[in-house]
Amino acid sequence: MIEGFYFGAVRAGLKESKNLDLAGFYSDIPCYVAILSTKNSFKAAPIIRNNDIIKENKFIRGLIVNSGMANAATGEDGYKDACSMCEIFAQKFNIKENETLVASTGIIGKRIPLTNIRDSLPLLKKSIRPDGYKDFAKAIITTDKREKIVIKQENGVTILGIAKGAGMISPSMATMLCFIFTDLSVDRDYLQESLYNAVSNSFNIISVDGDMSTNDTVILFSPFKNEHNTKKYEIFKRLLYGVCFELAMKILEDGEGATKIIKIRVSGNISKDDCKKIATAISRSLLVKTAMFGCDMNWGRILAAAGASGVNIDPFNVSLIVNGDMIFQRGKVAPYDEQLANVKMKNKNIVIELIVGESIYNEYIFYTNDLSVEYVHINADYTT
Amino acid sequence: MIEGFYFGAVRAGLKESKNLDLAGFYSDIPCYVAILSTKNSFKAAPIIRNNDIIKENKFIRGLIVNSGMANAATGEDGYKDACSMCEIFAQKFNIKENETLVASTGIIGKRIPLTNIRDSLPLLKKSIRPDGYKDFAKAIITTDKREKIVIKQENGVTILGIAKGAGMISPSMATMLCFIFTDLSVDRDYLQESLYNAVSNSFNIISVDGDMSTNDTVILFSPFKNEHNTKKYEIFKRLLYGVCFELAMKILEDGEGATKIIKIRVSGNISKDDCKKIATAISRSLLVKTAMFGCDMNWGRILAAAGASGVNIDPFNVSLIVNGDMIFQRGKVAPYDEQLANVKMKNKNIVIELIVGESIYNEYIFYTNDLSVEYVHINADYTT
Repeated sequence: MIEGFYFGAVRAGLKESKNLDLAGFYSDIPCYVAILSTKNSFKAAPIIRNNDIIKENKFIRGLIVNSGMANAATGEDGYKDACSMCEIFAQKFNIKENETLVASTGIIGKRIPLTNIRDSLPLLKKSIRPDGYKDFAKAIITTDKREKIVIKQENGVTILGIAKGAGMISPSMATMLCFIFTDLSVDRDYLQESLYNAVSNSFNIISVDGDMSTNDTVILFSPFKNEHNTKKYEIFKRLLYGVCFELAMKILEDGEGATKIIKIRVSGNISKDDCKKIATAISRSLLVKTAMFGCDMNWGRILAAAGASGVNIDPFNVSLIVNGDMIFQRGKVAPYDEQLANVKMKNKNIVIELIVGESIYNEYIFYTNDLSVEYVHINADYTT
Repeated sequence: MIEGFYFGAVRAGLKESKNLDLAGFYSDIPCYVAILSTKNSFKAAPIIRNNDIIKENKFIRGLIVNSGMANAATGEDGYKDACSMCEIFAQKFNIKENETLVASTGIIGKRIPLTNIRDSLPLLKKSIRPDGYKDFAKAIITTDKREKIVIKQENGVTILGIAKGAGMISPSMATMLCFIFTDLSVDRDYLQESLYNAVSNSFNIISVDGDMSTNDTVILFSPFKNEHNTKKYEIFKRLLYGVCFELAMKILEDGEGATKIIKIRVSGNISKDDCKKIATAISRSLLVKTAMFGCDMNWGRILAAAGASGVNIDPFNVSLIVNGDMIFQRGKVAPYDEQLANVKMKNKNIVIELIVGESIYNEYIFYTNDLSVEYVHINADYTT
């Protein structure tokens, strides 16, 4: 897939399901990395550890990821565990500890059994190979129904993206791990900027349940070859956005118990920030989300959620379009074909458009899921 | 119950269930009223109408309330309908239109069939009697499992409170109608201030689903007798708070599909506003709410929700107490009896206490429900 990049995964006995749960990445070539991580105050130990590593060393050659335990809310012991994971990996792969990054996902508050990690390393090393990324993707999932991989190639630029995440998904960022690998040698600053832009318009505009994780991490790896190709940079930027957006949609498709993807577009002669507030309020409304699950437009709930967003809007200036049908126009129910509208509500993809005044000025687009009985089952039963 | 106050209710054919759905209140004596209503931008027509009435006339003698349709998002036609309801009621009861208030609850966006209202008025007038408040309470409920009445009497002061609300409940205010009647003649300004204080610490600190309604209204009626009794005022204030708080708890007990009442107390050497932000974030977390439904503490989710509240907190300064057990102390899992803690999670009442630093400085208390499979069923099926 990408020259010099190797992936692998093993069963380390961390997950009850006994599936693959320990993944590794190794690079022949030192890599620049760009990292974005959760804004949650309770940052998981691996996130703190990675930040510390990046401060002291620019070049990365390894990554170890476990599922089963999030290594969050584990205090100083957890931090030491994260360090030990890097150390164990580095030793086995004959690289330096500060060339190794770490990520964890799973239950919060539980320590990672380091013995399992240590004992699994010989097999993990054996497992790595250029096309081992499929196993890598399988090993990092938790409540996901399927692994999430997106590959894009164009004019000699390759980007491979691997993500996990199905619940606890909310902007900045999803409960989500995402690892992206490119064969293009990209300047360090440009790498960070590109990642920031791509994530802002992909992972940060989706929400499954509005919960923000302690472990969210996106790491982008680029081999250091001291080349600079402006034309390829532009291609890279576009592909990177594509990879992130498609992975984000895969997360929504796999949203816990979700049956629908709801696109919410708020536009109008209000600020972009206000558009965002309204879109977020609609996306968080349990009444809207459950109505969607019931294939029921129940548009009054959409307006009520918008009205409760904190943005001061004049109802007589608001219009609502659902699945292309004008439902409510400047304060009044619009004449629409109710039967046809009801049929469209059964679609998997729902589009809600709210316009405050004129739509031409600002807009904000946000994606979310419906809220199903299954979501409650999954999350009431996923035990500590 | 209260001299000169009469209540009644009839079946006007507005609700599919064919239960009581039209309620009336009539007073022999002109009353001062205090009103608090929703901050939702999409205010229902009755709310706008009441505000207009209160501006032009201080004294109120009648109230008409329907369930079935919320008369919200109905534009100018809806406003006219609200006026007509007042007019029809006033005519029948031989009072003035601007002595009559109106409230509606039910589905958003549907017009109220005025013919049904008009045709039902003779029977409504016949139905009114001093102890008709039980029927009144029945007529205003929608998804509620039971009517909600609280009566308090002390030293010659009586307060009768009637409320409805089970879903779409969130601060400022619950989807909730609440009508409160006292026999004490209270100054207009003092009446408003007392209501504001009582509501701030009752209806505004509960949330079933975080959705804010278009119709929320609390109206407090006090007969105008031009008396002033400072001692009784103090009793009145205390009783009023008691009535509001108990009604708020009844709403939570009846929360759609709810199996638990969760008290969240956040305290610490952070501002009261920050305490509130954290408490609200925990109360809105679907992951916390579903875990509670599953009788699973899953305390990592509580910390994650707190960490995502936007308040900058240092995990090493945070402690978490659940149902009286210290679970997490200053960044570390505390030793607690897991088995006993699990048993306590099966209780109907759950208490979550989060302490940032020292608890002595500020605190905020908030109440919410768990999120059950039943909630999703109810709200996916409650059709437009």
